[in-house]
Amino acid sequence: METPLITSVQNPRVKQVVLLQQKSSERRKQGLFVVEGARELSHCLSHGYEADSLFVCDELLPSSSSLQEVLPSLEPSRVFHVSLKVYAKMAYRESTEGVLALLKSRVQSLERLELGPNPLIVVLESVEKPGNLGAILRSADASGADAVVVCDPLTDLYNPNLIRSSIGALFTVPCVACSSEDCIHFLKERGIQILTAQLQDSELYYDTPMTGPTAIVMGTESTGLTPQWRDAADRHIRIPMLGSLDSLNVSVSTAILLYEAVRQRRR
Amino acid sequence: METPLITSVQNPRVKQVVLLQQKSSERRKQGLFVVEGARELSHCLSHGYEADSLFVCDELLPSSSSLQEVLPSLEPSRVFHVSLKVYAKMAYRESTEGVLALLKSRVQSLERLELGPNPLIVVLESVEKPGNLGAILRSADASGADAVVVCDPLTDLYNPNLIRSSIGALFTVPCVACSSEDCIHFLKERGIQILTAQLQDSELYYDTPMTGPTAIVMGTESTGLTPQWRDAADRHIRIPMLGSLDSLNVSVSTAILLYEAVRQRRR
Repeated sequence: METPLITSVQNPRVKQVVLLQQKSSERRKQGLFVVEGARELSHCLSHGYEADSLFVCDELLPSSSSLQEVLPSLEPSRVFHVSLKVYAKMAYRESTEGVLALLKSRVQSLERLELGPNPLIVVLESVEKPGNLGAILRSADASGADAVVVCDPLTDLYNPNLIRSSIGALFTVPCVACSSEDCIHFLKERGIQILTAQLQDSELYYDTPMTGPTAIVMGTESTGLTPQWRDAADRHIRIPMLGSLDSLNVSVSTAILLYEAVRQRRR
Repeated sequence: METPLITSVQNPRVKQVVLLQQKSSERRKQGLFVVEGARELSHCLSHGYEADSLFVCDELLPSSSSLQEVLPSLEPSRVFHVSLKVYAKMAYRESTEGVLALLKSRVQSLERLELGPNPLIVVLESVEKPGNLGAILRSADASGADAVVVCDPLTDLYNPNLIRSSIGALFTVPCVACSSEDCIHFLKERGIQILTAQLQDSELYYDTPMTGPTAIVMGTESTGLTPQWRDAADRHIRIPMLGSLDSLNVSVSTAILLYEAVRQRRR
């Protein structure tokens, strides 16, 4: 049975979406988050996420939409058609092809991470900007990394800016938030070498073997890594800075290091 | 002689700054552009740019400001102190330490580019987002590249978003806007090999020698490079994509390729 068109921004479902877009506390409480765009939604569903409900604005939907692949997996009673005004109220982004869904959050944990035989992992000690984590997830996907671990258990992995900047990589690359202690224990226990990116007391990254199981650990742009990680490291690595300015963007640095591992592994 | 405090947003100098922030046509007509932040201004002046005037909001100025290094080079009659309200009206960014200046544009041309003995050049066929060019300039500075060339003669190199995202690299790395024809002629004439980043008919970037004079040519994220550049290329190179998604961000791809040149040159 098809649901009636939603035309009021006062509709409780519309209000729920707006609240979930705005508040990480609501996302945590309800165990739901918002995904916009047919392609992003498709990545999300094909990587095991479960949809709670789907909102479609038929006026915006392109005829060539990949929504057709997505729809069969949803009960008709969970698909809601909305007016242009209502969609504009709910959507965070400006052009998302008129497709927006509520998805059920998944608690990702270190224990449940499935690693390949020769893992390549990115560890971020903390995240300054959700957009940076999104960009790092994109590079992690491209370089075939096994996982991204954020060492702040309170990181909101379903922040709209993060989802947007990751262009779906949040769903294709396993991403875990945990404490630094747990992460260090996890890596040591599995014999994964820890390479910390830092200027002091370090070797050039391209002189560092990355052909075995490797975790690349990045600090923040402003304060770098804490002593806890420097001490846990097997090697300290640096990217040479040959110009007049201080530093590369953390997402760019991460990509350079990940692709050095790709080069050495010649995958 | 010190100038009086400017407290009105109707002041003609304030209006001029706002106009220059907003309109590239005004920047072109007046030959002036706006720089915010003491550090950015310092990079700008130390790389040969000439200041037209300086605006300081003393309430925002941190005590440790590097403005002290900048001030001596300016005539006191070109330094204007402004109120917090006026500064907020003029500033594009939110936190820039209360320092904003008008600088004289410089026409950078291919002919006047000073290249090192073994040039490394980034060529962008066009620029989709000023922020991407800013990020590429940042990586070009870090990797010691000689220049960034944008093959669209109408590119506004003094766009506020570009200056902001380059964190000053626009002033430390020579940046030229010209036509593709002129750029190809320039590179061929100087014996600089042309490497075009493209998926079709390409070799892996890390199998490509970059130890000699090299130009790395990037297309747009949406449409790639035009046949003109593909035909002009000495080699076509690609970054392997090992994940589920389509592509890396163009500024990330550029950084990976630039640092492969750094690695091979072991600078």
